[in-house]
Amino acid sequence: MAPQLDGYFAEVDKLSDHFIDRLAKAVAIPSISADASRRPDVVRMGEFLAAELKNLGASVELRPLGKQPDKPELDLPPVVLARYGSDKSKRTILVYGHYDVQPAEKSDGWATEPFTLTVGEDGRMFGRGSTDDKGPVLGWLNAIEAHQKAGIDFPVNLLMCFEGMEEYGSEGLDALIEQEGKGYFADADAVCISDNYWLGTEKPCLTYGLRGCNYYSVEIAGPGADLHSGVFGGTAQEPMTDLVRVLGSLVDTHGKIQIPGIYEQVAPVTSDEEGLYDGIAFTMETLHESLGSKTTIYEDKKPTLMARWRYPSLSVHGIEGAYSAPGAKTVIPAKVIGKFSIRTVPDMDIDKTNEAVYSYVKEVFSKLNSKNSLNVFAQHCGKWWVASPNHWNFRAAAKATERVWGVEPDFTREGGSIPVTLTFEQATGKNVLLLPMGSSTDGAHSINEKLDKRNYIEGIKLLGSYLHYVAEEPQV
Amino acid sequence: MAPQLDGYFAEVDKLSDHFIDRLAKAVAIPSISADASRRPDVVRMGEFLAAELKNLGASVELRPLGKQPDKPELDLPPVVLARYGSDKSKRTILVYGHYDVQPAEKSDGWATEPFTLTVGEDGRMFGRGSTDDKGPVLGWLNAIEAHQKAGIDFPVNLLMCFEGMEEYGSEGLDALIEQEGKGYFADADAVCISDNYWLGTEKPCLTYGLRGCNYYSVEIAGPGADLHSGVFGGTAQEPMTDLVRVLGSLVDTHGKIQIPGIYEQVAPVTSDEEGLYDGIAFTMETLHESLGSKTTIYEDKKPTLMARWRYPSLSVHGIEGAYSAPGAKTVIPAKVIGKFSIRTVPDMDIDKTNEAVYSYVKEVFSKLNSKNSLNVFAQHCGKWWVASPNHWNFRAAAKATERVWGVEPDFTREGGSIPVTLTFEQATGKNVLLLPMGSSTDGAHSINEKLDKRNYIEGIKLLGSYLHYVAEEPQV
Repeated sequence: MAPQLDGYFAEVDKLSDHFIDRLAKAVAIPSISADASRRPDVVRMGEFLAAELKNLGASVELRPLGKQPDKPELDLPPVVLARYGSDKSKRTILVYGHYDVQPAEKSDGWATEPFTLTVGEDGRMFGRGSTDDKGPVLGWLNAIEAHQKAGIDFPVNLLMCFEGMEEYGSEGLDALIEQEGKGYFADADAVCISDNYWLGTEKPCLTYGLRGCNYYSVEIAGPGADLHSGVFGGTAQEPMTDLVRVLGSLVDTHGKIQIPGIYEQVAPVTSDEEGLYDGIAFTMETLHESLGSKTTIYEDKKPTLMARWRYPSLSVHGIEGAYSAPGAKTVIPAKVIGKFSIRTVPDMDIDKTNEAVYSYVKEVFSKLNSKNSLNVFAQHCGKWWVASPNHWNFRAAAKATERVWGVEPDFTREGGSIPVTLTFEQATGKNVLLLPMGSSTDGAHSINEKLDKRNYIEGIKLLGSYLHYVAEEPQV
Repeated sequence: MAPQLDGYFAEVDKLSDHFIDRLAKAVAIPSISADASRRPDVVRMGEFLAAELKNLGASVELRPLGKQPDKPELDLPPVVLARYGSDKSKRTILVYGHYDVQPAEKSDGWATEPFTLTVGEDGRMFGRGSTDDKGPVLGWLNAIEAHQKAGIDFPVNLLMCFEGMEEYGSEGLDALIEQEGKGYFADADAVCISDNYWLGTEKPCLTYGLRGCNYYSVEIAGPGADLHSGVFGGTAQEPMTDLVRVLGSLVDTHGKIQIPGIYEQVAPVTSDEEGLYDGIAFTMETLHESLGSKTTIYEDKKPTLMARWRYPSLSVHGIEGAYSAPGAKTVIPAKVIGKFSIRTVPDMDIDKTNEAVYSYVKEVFSKLNSKNSLNVFAQHCGKWWVASPNHWNFRAAAKATERVWGVEPDFTREGGSIPVTLTFEQATGKNVLLLPMGSSTDGAHSINEKLDKRNYIEGIKLLGSYLHYVAEEPQV
């Protein structure tokens, strides 16, 4: 099947230096969305993408998103909306990626200049944005170009949505997706997002599930202003004393959430699912390596994967309003805000979970008999997402993976959230596939972020073949 | 007794505008010790004091203290050492104060320019340093000048030690005091420090005790770097989970320290002491006012004063290494350091207290069965101080108070620490008296710091009369 692929693969190999050069040009633009002073570079990166797409014959729009809510003097970078092909006899695939990057400074500890793509002899290509997410975004452009140069008909219509604020909360994007679900994206038959990673370093995967995230604040306040612990220690009830007791009641060292009404909502493990984990290419050694320690909760793969994918977890992130600097300060903070979040899974309900959290926190606090005041609320809630891995969208991606990598992909879920996934699913009503290009050691968000040359070049082949198998796959 | 005082008082009243002008000149110098860029102003303030003292006929030294330990490029401001009189037939009193101030910006919320002394019609004199501690320091200079102008013999030899780093840990001062205990300060018969406050706003007090302070860090670490809670939540043991449980075990909402071996060290309440608290001019209303809320542990004066003065307290100050900014961040911090301190009282021993803390924290942590690592240590320890209020130094101050204010002073202790007090006592081997000028509502360290004109002018009379009664007081 998909007989044109040999010619496509040969063309990708032939163009590989050119594709690496394209990535180098993109990495050289420091499109850091969190840094207001870099906003012109973010915009320049969007314009670079638009120009490249126009050169390839795509129709392109730079869609403005208005002002940045927390910095009203600052324009949000535009969303690049593009269409390549509009043949009604072909399927239409909507792909998403982002062209902004995390901050990076050489002085953070980078071995190379972060905004200079540096290709080592071992094929590691270091540079901020190489794997997250400029490599995958350019993968789609490269796939178009290789088809053109090889003279192979592009198998689908491609809709593209590339944003410039992903690393800063995707400001403004949800509204656009919701609006364009029946507009610009109306003829999409399925969605593909390449913005996550293999579970390890050797075996490719397709991702069909993500946990949700409910993020909570617990505010405890008493005195009118911060106090001196010498003068007031022993005479005033201290909000911080109450807060650490409340936060200490939420979860134990072994990850067991102490809040009644959470585990009760979790979907039971089916016998099908029981057999699923053993085959996954994942080892505790890799986990210890990425953790930088052996302080895991479980010793074995299966309970570890289940804890990451299909059970909720609760993490305490920190406290706002208390003393947080190095050194010693004898302050009694007047108002402290504890932050924690619960990663949610099927079939947990956002409202039911919030209710359980609120009533438990209030009960723990009331047992303290404190005169301080308590306020507990959710800062934001995002639902979990699970797609059907039996859909033709996943079948096509699985066949493409076998063709390019010579192995059946693992079907994985992820512990984290990519909120845009659910937004696309809800706005288009179509199946969404997460098709990663990079591997678990790429260090997105860290120093020395890299993309392996192999993952980039084979990844371009993967994206292109996926589109060919999409074109061939029967409806059901 | 002390018949010369009427003439002295009249002279102080006559010179009051001049004395306020001198305070205005001092407040106008923004001698902020915590701000390296203000160091020239701190030095200028020391030189201003030295010049004023020379004009009054004192012999003065500006004693350098070397470089600032945490900013080795920065010279510490000099200590002003001065002597007024060396008549071997007179007693010699050593006084201490500081000429540096806390930071202040109009934009912090000040109603007036912080470095412009602003005298309201109600006699409140607003300005940074007015009460802490430029007013009291100038009090000694004003007392000398009023004696000179009234033609009254100065009753004692006065040794003065004014430092410029008190608001930044008194860097370098301890070594100087220890060295000069048998040197520059060798002939001191007693020590007087005017750098604290009345318990309320109406009744003067003499302070004879301070709590000590042991400041602890609890470090819990696991992963090699901060983690993403989506990817690792549920699979890794989280240091923050352990830390809030450890911090939550230290003290309860009602101030009861949970660590065995603390209360066992506290000196029992004597029957003499039992009767001491009822007479103290202190009301729960004033406490609620300065607290800005009614979240006190006790409803009544006596247990409140005892909790502040003669019982230990434990405050949790904050956490270093966790997420402390506003907003939401889904981080699992790799290493977190909890900070708490215990205010210590007679007869608590520093080492014994540390031992009790370490072994309790280790025990609580070991019960968590965590793979994370724990390190608990004291950042700094300062001993409590209690002087004999029956010493002639206190008797003289009490008589002066009655003469100036027309009431017997309260004999008070304080919950906070003034470490230099103990250093002076140990270096000189003499009785130390804390003789406050300002009142509880002066707002040292806060916005709108003020000194009431009445407290300043009557305070100058008080300092002068104290020296007269010192001269008259029998040895035992």
